[in-house]
Amino acid sequence: MSNERIIYLPLGGAGEIGMNCYVYGYGKPGEERLIVVDLGVAFPDMDTTPGVDIIFADIAWLVENRARIEAVFITHAHEDHVGAVGHCFERLGAPIYARAFTANIARGKLAEYGYSEDTVRTASKWPETIKAGPFTVGFLPISHSIPESSGLVIDTPQGRLIHTGDFKLDAQPLVGEAFDPDLWAEVSAPGVRALICDSTNVFSPNPGRSEVEVGPEIEKLVASAPQLVVATTFASNVARVKTLADAGSKAGRSICLLGRAMRRMIEAAIETGVLTDFPRVVSTEDAAAIPRENLMLIVTGSQGERRAASAQLSRGKYNGMELKEGDLFLFSSKTIPGNEKDVIRIINNFSERGVDVVDDSSGKYHVSGHANGPDLARLHEIVQPQIVVPMHGEHRHLREHVKLAKSKGRAGVLAVNGMMIDLSGNEPTVAQWIDAGRTYLDGSVQIGAMDGIVRDRIRMALNGHVVVTVILDEDDEPLGEPWCELKGLPETGRSHAPLVEVLEEDLSQFLGRAGDKTLTDDDKIEEGMRRIVRNTAQNEIGKKPEVTVVVSRLS
Amino acid sequence: MSNERIIYLPLGGAGEIGMNCYVYGYGKPGEERLIVVDLGVAFPDMDTTPGVDIIFADIAWLVENRARIEAVFITHAHEDHVGAVGHCFERLGAPIYARAFTANIARGKLAEYGYSEDTVRTASKWPETIKAGPFTVGFLPISHSIPESSGLVIDTPQGRLIHTGDFKLDAQPLVGEAFDPDLWAEVSAPGVRALICDSTNVFSPNPGRSEVEVGPEIEKLVASAPQLVVATTFASNVARVKTLADAGSKAGRSICLLGRAMRRMIEAAIETGVLTDFPRVVSTEDAAAIPRENLMLIVTGSQGERRAASAQLSRGKYNGMELKEGDLFLFSSKTIPGNEKDVIRIINNFSERGVDVVDDSSGKYHVSGHANGPDLARLHEIVQPQIVVPMHGEHRHLREHVKLAKSKGRAGVLAVNGMMIDLSGNEPTVAQWIDAGRTYLDGSVQIGAMDGIVRDRIRMALNGHVVVTVILDEDDEPLGEPWCELKGLPETGRSHAPLVEVLEEDLSQFLGRAGDKTLTDDDKIEEGMRRIVRNTAQNEIGKKPEVTVVVSRLS
Repeated sequence: MSNERIIYLPLGGAGEIGMNCYVYGYGKPGEERLIVVDLGVAFPDMDTTPGVDIIFADIAWLVENRARIEAVFITHAHEDHVGAVGHCFERLGAPIYARAFTANIARGKLAEYGYSEDTVRTASKWPETIKAGPFTVGFLPISHSIPESSGLVIDTPQGRLIHTGDFKLDAQPLVGEAFDPDLWAEVSAPGVRALICDSTNVFSPNPGRSEVEVGPEIEKLVASAPQLVVATTFASNVARVKTLADAGSKAGRSICLLGRAMRRMIEAAIETGVLTDFPRVVSTEDAAAIPRENLMLIVTGSQGERRAASAQLSRGKYNGMELKEGDLFLFSSKTIPGNEKDVIRIINNFSERGVDVVDDSSGKYHVSGHANGPDLARLHEIVQPQIVVPMHGEHRHLREHVKLAKSKGRAGVLAVNGMMIDLSGNEPTVAQWIDAGRTYLDGSVQIGAMDGIVRDRIRMALNGHVVVTVILDEDDEPLGEPWCELKGLPETGRSHAPLVEVLEEDLSQFLGRAGDKTLTDDDKIEEGMRRIVRNTAQNEIGKKPEVTVVVSRLS
Repeated sequence: MSNERIIYLPLGGAGEIGMNCYVYGYGKPGEERLIVVDLGVAFPDMDTTPGVDIIFADIAWLVENRARIEAVFITHAHEDHVGAVGHCFERLGAPIYARAFTANIARGKLAEYGYSEDTVRTASKWPETIKAGPFTVGFLPISHSIPESSGLVIDTPQGRLIHTGDFKLDAQPLVGEAFDPDLWAEVSAPGVRALICDSTNVFSPNPGRSEVEVGPEIEKLVASAPQLVVATTFASNVARVKTLADAGSKAGRSICLLGRAMRRMIEAAIETGVLTDFPRVVSTEDAAAIPRENLMLIVTGSQGERRAASAQLSRGKYNGMELKEGDLFLFSSKTIPGNEKDVIRIINNFSERGVDVVDDSSGKYHVSGHANGPDLARLHEIVQPQIVVPMHGEHRHLREHVKLAKSKGRAGVLAVNGMMIDLSGNEPTVAQWIDAGRTYLDGSVQIGAMDGIVRDRIRMALNGHVVVTVILDEDDEPLGEPWCELKGLPETGRSHAPLVEVLEEDLSQFLGRAGDKTLTDDDKIEEGMRRIVRNTAQNEIGKKPEVTVVVSRLS
């Protein structure tokens, strides 16, 4: 053996579902040449990230080691794998490789930042490969809920790794390539050092179901609907969109796509030849003239996103369309944990309009795009890796996946974001810990999760905000009274006097009592006034607000 | 018929799950004597109600008609039925009736406001009744996931109503009374004008399962656990707490209750004679000395509440207890929609500690406390009401419940919060619309949902907050430069200069250009400065912050 090594370093996705970003390295310790697999995003929520637009892995370590990066590979076009390419490209500067459909989507994201088409290079599928420093990388087709999802065959001087990307074992995915167990066995035959493997559905106890199973059920439902039919699913699930459209067509309905993402995905699939026989669609203008019993809308917003078509339709007119009593709305999707309230809000809005909503609680109108527990075991069996490295999952998923591997007598290693693993030896070992964090795209600015900016927003939301202004003259004497402004706080409390007045009174008294030592020191004034506001507010309204003190000196 | 009428008016719970509050009236229109059924709360979330402590129905209409209120009846001791008694009692001033266990809990809440024991009167169960103006009311036992849940038999001069409260049809609830179909049939025999009926589980297609079914499964699980066992459930589910404790006892484990609510509920159940044979519990001090394989903790926090025992244990030591590799944690509960992320966070924390978490995804360790679709149909069949009035549910549940009633040939009416229904005639009709809203307990102050206070908090959380201070001298000329403070915003943006400086520069220019007409008018200054801050920030950081402008004049 040389003193070179293979390293694996997850920066995002190994500790959460979303924001996938994995690094592989090969070379002398500290000098490994690097490749990056996926640059994905996660989505914010009010609880932890109010006001944030998008979340992705902190790539500071990659940027520091930018000169060592050979290339970026994107496994598939889901947002949690490709969504951050535009936001990260400039700081990484490495070429991006993806298969045609994925590349089409990635180019759209890079174009928003003004990068040209050729920042993304279109890769062909296995057995073609790409040389990237010491690595040779091939895109090995695997089925998933989006076309052209691929595992990566990563050859190093010390052996072969397989990174699955997201996948399911679907023999009939309808659009895109079927899982081919013989091909995977053949590729694995020379021996696989490590299988880095999707973990999201490890807790699902039954083998996954094929995309082909939902078609007949959806057809039955659509055929029996008396009025307008509207269906939503993930826009990127091109196979499902096609199934929905086919069901509509068979029932004699014209198909209309609503929502930018829906049209974008179908266009990309047609442009890249992934989708060849999609029913003819009508424009929203034309749709308006079609009798509702002859029309089917396929729309964005299956997760209850407030600005997407589903939510807008639930609130009223959208693009000239409006749902009515007796119409049918189908969620051909599952609700991602955390989105339940938004989805339920839409269902209740539709209920108020008399629209009948069908969701997947029956299990008939949706199948997952991820491998379940038994499917993972089957893939382990086909690939026969020396080590299983679970990726893409929360801690509980990674841990369960390691357990699954070990239960079949395989080595498994629980590697979370920031844990650099040396895969060279007989046993995986922790080589180093890297600071792994999160970056927020906030408006047009990238901020760090630990910068305190979002923490301050959460505090204002929980506690309200009091602004105190005080003016001191040239002799450091207060000029007039201190002044309070409230935001997000009640106007009166216990004493029934305006809270502003009660606060100002207490602040005036504080200033009146304050000596020169305080009045000449902004920090002391601020600290004293903050304390008074918090105590008085606690007494009046039972809350301690955030306080900003502005001291103005005329000197 | 007389010109008197029966009215039904939901103020909370008919349009959501939670904050139940229903009003019944009898008399001449506008002069009806009133009774109130339940005063419950709902829980806040960051999305819609950041910083709020508790939510309950706006009782303004009741307060206006306070002189007409005869009594308040509480069906059972769940927070969404009894939680607001303390917050509302003073403004209603009517006597509160409840059965012993419920009364015990209600008294605890009233004591927090300093009200004496006798504000709550203990009612006996049917056939005893309480006279309340034109009404005669009896507490008719029904099973639920808390002891002594009762339907109310409400007799009026124009016939009998039955208000179910929350319920399931459980022949073996283990603690509390079993559902007695013969008793319910007997009470219904004289004819029931309207059945006002729980709707929360109307979409569940199979008959509900009995509490007795979970015991054997829990026993098996606990018996096979090698180390410490910790279980959580709703503290008020006394039967489940007992089942858990019995399973621990049978496995030779000492039982320790953790969390104030858990101990409070068990105490109340023992004090009121509802619970007679609970295993002996040990204190946390004693528990610390017991080998972990001989110990079982039963803890609060099944919904992931951050301050409850489950969450605290997932983060580290709590009351001297700490979970370790190989321990078992059982969620004997379901996750209420909206709480998924908090529960998952706990599971992942435990995963990091090597604790094995078992939840109800197998369906073995929890049964619901509410009647499913077929159970509702069965109760309709037993009671044979003239009208079914669905209550306690979101709009979709109420609508589905009306459909269910109609599918069996019964009249049903979809009455949402604020809709006053006249139940006197052959067909229910809408008598009037009342402003139904939500009241927030915010710290120690009750505020209205529409007051704009919480809206301002949400805006600060989404957009950040800029405070601008400007001082004008006696001649209305700016004294020095305007001053900005940021909260919840990044320090730099597009130009890489500090955002504060960019804003102050633009504000200075604005003031420099401003004529007397602006400078003498605070509103114009504020409006102009707000516009500048928002535009400049949009340009620099891609966000439009909330802006507070403080104009100080020396004149």
